[in-house]
Amino acid sequence: MSEPARSDTGVTAPKGFLASGIHCGIRRDRADLALLVSRHEASAAAVFTRNEVLAAPVVLSRAALEASGGRAQAILVNAGNANACTGEQGDRAARRSAEALAGLLDLPPDRVLVASTGVIGQQLPVERLIDGLPRAVAALSVEGGADAAEAILTTDTHRKESVRRVEAPGGSYTIGGMVKGSGMIHPDLATTLAFVTTDAVLPAVVLSAILRRAADRSFNRLTVDGDTSTNDMIGLLANGAAGVAASADGFERALTELLVELARAVARDGEGATRLITVQVTGAAGEPEALAVARTIAGSLLVKTAVHGADANWGRIAAAAGRAGVALRPAAMTVKMNGLTVLSPGFLSDYSEAEASRRLGLDEVVLEVDLGAGDGEATTWTCDLTRGYIDINANYRT
Amino acid sequence: MSEPARSDTGVTAPKGFLASGIHCGIRRDRADLALLVSRHEASAAAVFTRNEVLAAPVVLSRAALEASGGRAQAILVNAGNANACTGEQGDRAARRSAEALAGLLDLPPDRVLVASTGVIGQQLPVERLIDGLPRAVAALSVEGGADAAEAILTTDTHRKESVRRVEAPGGSYTIGGMVKGSGMIHPDLATTLAFVTTDAVLPAVVLSAILRRAADRSFNRLTVDGDTSTNDMIGLLANGAAGVAASADGFERALTELLVELARAVARDGEGATRLITVQVTGAAGEPEALAVARTIAGSLLVKTAVHGADANWGRIAAAAGRAGVALRPAAMTVKMNGLTVLSPGFLSDYSEAEASRRLGLDEVVLEVDLGAGDGEATTWTCDLTRGYIDINANYRT
Repeated sequence: MSEPARSDTGVTAPKGFLASGIHCGIRRDRADLALLVSRHEASAAAVFTRNEVLAAPVVLSRAALEASGGRAQAILVNAGNANACTGEQGDRAARRSAEALAGLLDLPPDRVLVASTGVIGQQLPVERLIDGLPRAVAALSVEGGADAAEAILTTDTHRKESVRRVEAPGGSYTIGGMVKGSGMIHPDLATTLAFVTTDAVLPAVVLSAILRRAADRSFNRLTVDGDTSTNDMIGLLANGAAGVAASADGFERALTELLVELARAVARDGEGATRLITVQVTGAAGEPEALAVARTIAGSLLVKTAVHGADANWGRIAAAAGRAGVALRPAAMTVKMNGLTVLSPGFLSDYSEAEASRRLGLDEVVLEVDLGAGDGEATTWTCDLTRGYIDINANYRT
Repeated sequence: MSEPARSDTGVTAPKGFLASGIHCGIRRDRADLALLVSRHEASAAAVFTRNEVLAAPVVLSRAALEASGGRAQAILVNAGNANACTGEQGDRAARRSAEALAGLLDLPPDRVLVASTGVIGQQLPVERLIDGLPRAVAALSVEGGADAAEAILTTDTHRKESVRRVEAPGGSYTIGGMVKGSGMIHPDLATTLAFVTTDAVLPAVVLSAILRRAADRSFNRLTVDGDTSTNDMIGLLANGAAGVAASADGFERALTELLVELARAVARDGEGATRLITVQVTGAAGEPEALAVARTIAGSLLVKTAVHGADANWGRIAAAAGRAGVALRPAAMTVKMNGLTVLSPGFLSDYSEAEASRRLGLDEVVLEVDLGAGDGEATTWTCDLTRGYIDINANYRT
């Protein structure tokens, strides 16, 4: 089969992947079913939410990866219904949808991964989903990557895709990804739904550890609102279609870059967000201490509202650092806001509030916090907290 | 000295306590200096924030209690400036204000406790505070309890006081309290500023442990926004003026009740809040597990916004429970909202959304969550999250 022109945006940018996004009727008037298929069986890995309440598709996909020994060929995603807290009926619905797709594609059912996102606690209208599958399969194309990226969104305001091309000794290969945000997002429990494809040759046995480390340096450093979904999953398919063997190191580096780009896109488009906030902590005793402080600052509602108000209230940053569970010498701290030093060691703060406010009004705000204690550093991402978040979440189901 | 008629509201309800609240000019046009004095030296105890960034008054008051062996006679509180992250100049300001008051009252400086609340990172205008002290001392009265309760407020919309009268074998005694909220509030690190007086006879040696346990069952189960102040303190003075010895158990029970009432008042008046939310978790493996789940639910922005929108989105409660770090059988959970069962074991939910929405629209919302696993139970308090919180905190300093 001749290879058609490549999409240059998302999951169909790597060779041998097709995708589609259609409306099957789970949501009223918005695409709600995404399909991602590799032309050939691929090595596969995934990280899942660590929430104790697991959605049916999470349980099923984890079992499928175990049964197949890390092989998969298709990923089926629906938006508009999380299929979580839906009991045995929900388990059956997830299984039936995977089996129906496997039937259409002539695959063993355990080569299909499923994911869902949307309202928790309502039964998935699985007949509508299954009825939509033939159309989704018929629509599969290289150009369909963008449609798939659109169909997985919930409160996101736009689709989020990313691509990396990597030069390796044997030639070049490509990594493509798509992700949806944009609430119920918090570190350390995988986060949100993200799907990554690559045409590099990579054995399944290394894929899982690479994905876990890359997720730890990207999505696990992202918080929107401190809540963690029942459905989170990052799925990765490596189909080898480029015929180029990737070095584990090179692939991990490129994958991490791609996931960081997607994670930042999620933060920037967090529910109600007007600004991307990057929190860079340096000078901690070690990386774990830096990460704890960075996460606590990124999670602070008071920091997030102050940035929203373009108020250089660095005292809130210091107070958040102080409750991170890390020993701290407050008088050794330095805080910069988009490059402007607002706190120097010894609690010296001498800056123009007008200039600070101007810098906090930019689209992206970088908060640099140096603890003056060692060499540990870590970066996290979040967004400002606005009336928009309240409006979205006070009326999510209505 | 004859005992004047008792105030029946707050810290001057117990015998032998006087208070005042005046404007000394730290804030523009609002009372900002509160004074609480016992006619005789009292047994004293306090719990302080566990934030690593400690405000100067916290450091000073802790040292004073150590130096005096748990004795104190006066508490001086200012609002409008936290005197936190203010370095040695801030330490000096706290010390000078305590010494100035001690001079006026003819007390050893270590019999004065000081507390501050307000903006972090600005130097306390200590001359204005010291200049105001003679007026504050002159204004001391039994009726001044309400003025003191007013002068310690920040973003609170009204003052918060409480009184308990306790019948003991030797007669009756009284406990009175005042508190300020209403943001930067989160469990386990003492929380906010609260001051409690009693005329019971209680040795200092038992006071500290009693206060710690009572705080653990009240303020440490309260969250408004997950942020913890650099200035939190609960101070307790027991002056023995009633001449009645309190049993440790009876006093602890009454003190806990009083602190719970004050904690609930803080939640109800949380920044921007329109509703008090009580989260009651039962059926956990033990109390620590119940508390972890209750705190996580109370801290969830998605739960708090759903209550604000009167949306019976119980899936968010289940999802929050699932990330509490506690082993959980989701299918065993029951969730009630103001008495209406919205989730039964096996993920059966069959209720009227209209009725649920009506119940969530009440001033107080009780979320009952049974985990179906054991006998552990715990209660926490919080409030809904609204546009008002954003508006207050995006522009706090301006």
